[in-house]
Amino acid sequence: MSTKNNRDGMSRRDFLRITATAGVGLAIGATGMAAMENTIAPEAPAGAGNEPQEERIPMYGEHQAGIITPQQRYMYLASFRITAEDRAGLTSLLRSWTKFCDLSTAGGTMKTGSNPLLPPDDTGETLDLPASGLTVTFGFGPTLFSADGKDRFGIAGKMPRFLKDIPRMPKDNLDPLLSGGDICIQVCAEDQQVAFHAVRNFIRLATGSATVNWMQEGFISGGSSGQTPRNLFGFKDGTANGLHQTEQGYKDVIWAGDDEPAWMKGGTYMAYRKVRMLLEIWDRASLSDQEDTFGRYKESGASYGRKGEFDEADPSKMPATAHVRLAKEAGRLIHRRGYSYSDGIDPRTGNVNAGLLFISFQKNPEEQLVPMLKLMQSKDALNEYTSHVASGLFACPGGLREGQYIGQSLLES
Amino acid sequence: MSTKNNRDGMSRRDFLRITATAGVGLAIGATGMAAMENTIAPEAPAGAGNEPQEERIPMYGEHQAGIITPQQRYMYLASFRITAEDRAGLTSLLRSWTKFCDLSTAGGTMKTGSNPLLPPDDTGETLDLPASGLTVTFGFGPTLFSADGKDRFGIAGKMPRFLKDIPRMPKDNLDPLLSGGDICIQVCAEDQQVAFHAVRNFIRLATGSATVNWMQEGFISGGSSGQTPRNLFGFKDGTANGLHQTEQGYKDVIWAGDDEPAWMKGGTYMAYRKVRMLLEIWDRASLSDQEDTFGRYKESGASYGRKGEFDEADPSKMPATAHVRLAKEAGRLIHRRGYSYSDGIDPRTGNVNAGLLFISFQKNPEEQLVPMLKLMQSKDALNEYTSHVASGLFACPGGLREGQYIGQSLLES
Repeated sequence: MSTKNNRDGMSRRDFLRITATAGVGLAIGATGMAAMENTIAPEAPAGAGNEPQEERIPMYGEHQAGIITPQQRYMYLASFRITAEDRAGLTSLLRSWTKFCDLSTAGGTMKTGSNPLLPPDDTGETLDLPASGLTVTFGFGPTLFSADGKDRFGIAGKMPRFLKDIPRMPKDNLDPLLSGGDICIQVCAEDQQVAFHAVRNFIRLATGSATVNWMQEGFISGGSSGQTPRNLFGFKDGTANGLHQTEQGYKDVIWAGDDEPAWMKGGTYMAYRKVRMLLEIWDRASLSDQEDTFGRYKESGASYGRKGEFDEADPSKMPATAHVRLAKEAGRLIHRRGYSYSDGIDPRTGNVNAGLLFISFQKNPEEQLVPMLKLMQSKDALNEYTSHVASGLFACPGGLREGQYIGQSLLES
Repeated sequence: MSTKNNRDGMSRRDFLRITATAGVGLAIGATGMAAMENTIAPEAPAGAGNEPQEERIPMYGEHQAGIITPQQRYMYLASFRITAEDRAGLTSLLRSWTKFCDLSTAGGTMKTGSNPLLPPDDTGETLDLPASGLTVTFGFGPTLFSADGKDRFGIAGKMPRFLKDIPRMPKDNLDPLLSGGDICIQVCAEDQQVAFHAVRNFIRLATGSATVNWMQEGFISGGSSGQTPRNLFGFKDGTANGLHQTEQGYKDVIWAGDDEPAWMKGGTYMAYRKVRMLLEIWDRASLSDQEDTFGRYKESGASYGRKGEFDEADPSKMPATAHVRLAKEAGRLIHRRGYSYSDGIDPRTGNVNAGLLFISFQKNPEEQLVPMLKLMQSKDALNEYTSHVASGLFACPGGLREGQYIGQSLLES
């Protein structure tokens, strides 16, 4: 009882043929795109190709996609606990995930099944949809290397230098069920259904090898038109990324140093903090309280005493507890790639359950991120309106060449 | 400590000026758009204007927007309990909501505040964003008219004919905290941040007059390119809408009859069912089991024995328990406008918490919807893979003229 036409779905070969026909314009690599980005000012439109839905962002290159890629509008983060008992099992999972990545970031789907008596290879909800700028970024948590003193996969000796949980902060209110994990996958796309399809199939392909710990979805708007997106407090968020968006800047801020294990070359650390925003309290604060809290004007995004969003901040013009002042005083840059979230109504309080998925990439979280978090948790005026409810730190390996699988340089070197 | 430039945000007058400059093309009314839709086949692109982000869908007309409006990609549903004690309090809330609707559907925002000592009138997260096809649809629940035998607002005599909770079905697993409500607001937009901004401000403006019971977000993809969106089982969902998309069809299927109270003229009933989909079980079913469950081919969307998605279904070709066969046997049409949802991981089972927000509009839920639900809950093969977890029925009043407020015809006639 199956139609025959188009039953095979789109194969990788179909995709290569289509790409060749459509020309190079559709398939600018993440690296190539970043190089282009580096030459334009942060104000300029990022996804200027105008057809973001059709856009394919290849997964191969010096770095993984989804790190310096201009932010897509939707994101899922999923964290997994590996249940495979040995390196062969882990390798098999990573190969299978990589194969799915290759196909889905190219806008293809797996066969829905030539044998009607078997489950389809693909869940099918993106059969009619283009790649939509899909990217997938893998990060490895500390417990992948060593858990309960056990070196499960024989890789404890290749632990990256700075990979450990972000230290507990005095005001943390973390839910362990929503934090950490052996492997974290960040999926981003311009279309939520495309992003959901990817994360759901990563979960499906993990059956027998890994279980999902938690999954979190997020959204932003404005990024693809080159504007700095606004967070749910109504303030621009990520303005300071403009300070390092050059090749040298990325090297200084994001990419792992030469003193890391070889498999981290071209890699970085991804930090995650789920920050609940107390919207009802914020919305009752006066405009000047809100602006004093950030040290920025709400509408323009300019910091106090400045006119333009990207004018250099002058901490002396801001209250001592202003968020931007403290970030500036911490003195180190990070690469922000955050999303907003809304999780319905909190049944305990009747308040909106929403906030910020803080995601940052940095070469050295101990120097760049942890001191900033500590300073902010002790002094930041924002603490009155926020609560950190989940946390994670993951080491993202460098990029792949076609034919390799994610983590191969860690598992086979 | 405030910038002066652009401090006033965009006023309604600014918007009217911009609209006049930009020309009529940007501002096709919901009714006008529906009229256009009626003349084209369901396969043709719906949002063919190509710049859906800029699109403004005016809220005024014979019917509320968001009912026969081509489906936008994001939706929030929010349900409220009115705490205002009298008709004056309720009227004041509805006036305030209407004013915000008028501004936000036009792509404007309220002033962020000329007095820095007061909270901003607008939360600000859409300051840089266009209208993005925003629509707002209000529905009134049975308890607004009469709760615990009390006629709180003096409108019990104007109860619509079919407004009562959907009867309990044998397989229901409803959470009362996520069901029903005095007033339900459906917000739809092409941009999730624009939709979130609207629902959040409805909640904010309700302070002191209403509390929010529950809020649910949903997404689809494919609708705006004229394709029938696929649900999370990978099947096309909403194909049968093609059977009534003419002016007469809308009249027969959606718009309230002449025997309803006057304020329901041009109105309809909105039904809501939150249907959890057991994705992990579904994904293990064979392709032929999946296709037998719906009575449709997965890829093409054609019903069994047919070739094209829109070819008339022949129940005799399908298994007796097929979803499409039972819908056909129920014999009545409804107007589907569903969305998918994903709510993270269910902590009890470790499974993905996702599914379908079934939303339908119909003139007579007792004849069109309830028998179909009953037939399906007793026989539908889909029951093996789904669970109904929330429910609601709301009466949507007819459309507004500029200067009126939503519900005015109910409260003042």
